[in-house]
Amino acid sequence: MKFCSECGQQVTHKVPELDDRKRYVCDSCGVIHYQNPKVIVGSLPVWQDQVLLCRRAIEPRYGYWTLPAGFMENGETTLEGAIRETQEEAGALLKDGTLYRLFDIPMINQVYLFYLAELQTPGMDPGIESLEVRMFDEADIPWDELAFPVMNDVLKEFFDDRRKNQYPVRTGLPSFRLKPAAS
Amino acid sequence: MKFCSECGQQVTHKVPELDDRKRYVCDSCGVIHYQNPKVIVGSLPVWQDQVLLCRRAIEPRYGYWTLPAGFMENGETTLEGAIRETQEEAGALLKDGTLYRLFDIPMINQVYLFYLAELQTPGMDPGIESLEVRMFDEADIPWDELAFPVMNDVLKEFFDDRRKNQYPVRTGLPSFRLKPAAS
Repeated sequence: MKFCSECGQQVTHKVPELDDRKRYVCDSCGVIHYQNPKVIVGSLPVWQDQVLLCRRAIEPRYGYWTLPAGFMENGETTLEGAIRETQEEAGALLKDGTLYRLFDIPMINQVYLFYLAELQTPGMDPGIESLEVRMFDEADIPWDELAFPVMNDVLKEFFDDRRKNQYPVRTGLPSFRLKPAAS
Repeated sequence: MKFCSECGQQVTHKVPELDDRKRYVCDSCGVIHYQNPKVIVGSLPVWQDQVLLCRRAIEPRYGYWTLPAGFMENGETTLEGAIRETQEEAGALLKDGTLYRLFDIPMINQVYLFYLAELQTPGMDPGIESLEVRMFDEADIPWDELAFPVMNDVLKEFFDDRRKNQYPVRTGLPSFRLKPAAS
């Protein structure tokens, strides 16, 4: 951030009065521009014994497989966001959904929320963000071609939980460490 | 948003190519300024049979009682944020904590995450954001003087769950409807 989005003047990076960390502050109009983590909403779509994955048609990780997920938008709930992303990336409709996994990724200022959900029908249709959409049995999951470490984690947890038929909500960091975000 | 935070030129509110909703776009440098929901992290701090509440020394809802909660910061996990807010607003230290409640508040573009946590000690010390910090038995909770509807909801759910000694993670809207956010 270089300029104030309210008045267009240059901003300063400094600790505001009564605060304890640096913010972008406009010395001209006084506005403090807070920057906060973003929420990624996604789904783990299930049909009978299979799980839906999309092959990415966009960077980063073009050509790799992913669960449907993307930035949460203003004006929607987390579940509505997960349903929307599933529709956009896979052309697939979810039946409701229950919160299943929260990943904290402080290194890149993100919180991932995955909903576990049954598909309404096995129908699907890749959107412009996907090269391909397919249902996978556990034995066929392309573990080495998954786009992001959180996908490996949540899929492994899901198949473990399915064997126990218990799906507790899990939280915490992904098992793979990412590089710190540029500050 | 009126000006581009990258180059300082005026922004336009329009639907970018391949998108389906209006964004603030800089026609000068091409940057699209996405706006996304913010995460509020909080705790439900417990000591023996009592729950900690803070009386707000800041607007909105000056003088009303609240659980410790505030905007999640970049570079922290959701639990670290909940612990930080509890320390800042109540001077109280939490023992770990487990995710207990997610509130979607799409009308104001917020996601609340509450962690249920025991206090390390019954010690507390109001920070500059609190007039007073106190432990409450269920019978003494000031239900009509709570700062926000989510506080009524999560406290009611907690006392109900405590009677059953089961604390499932709950999700969804608060029971009180808020006015829509200004767009």
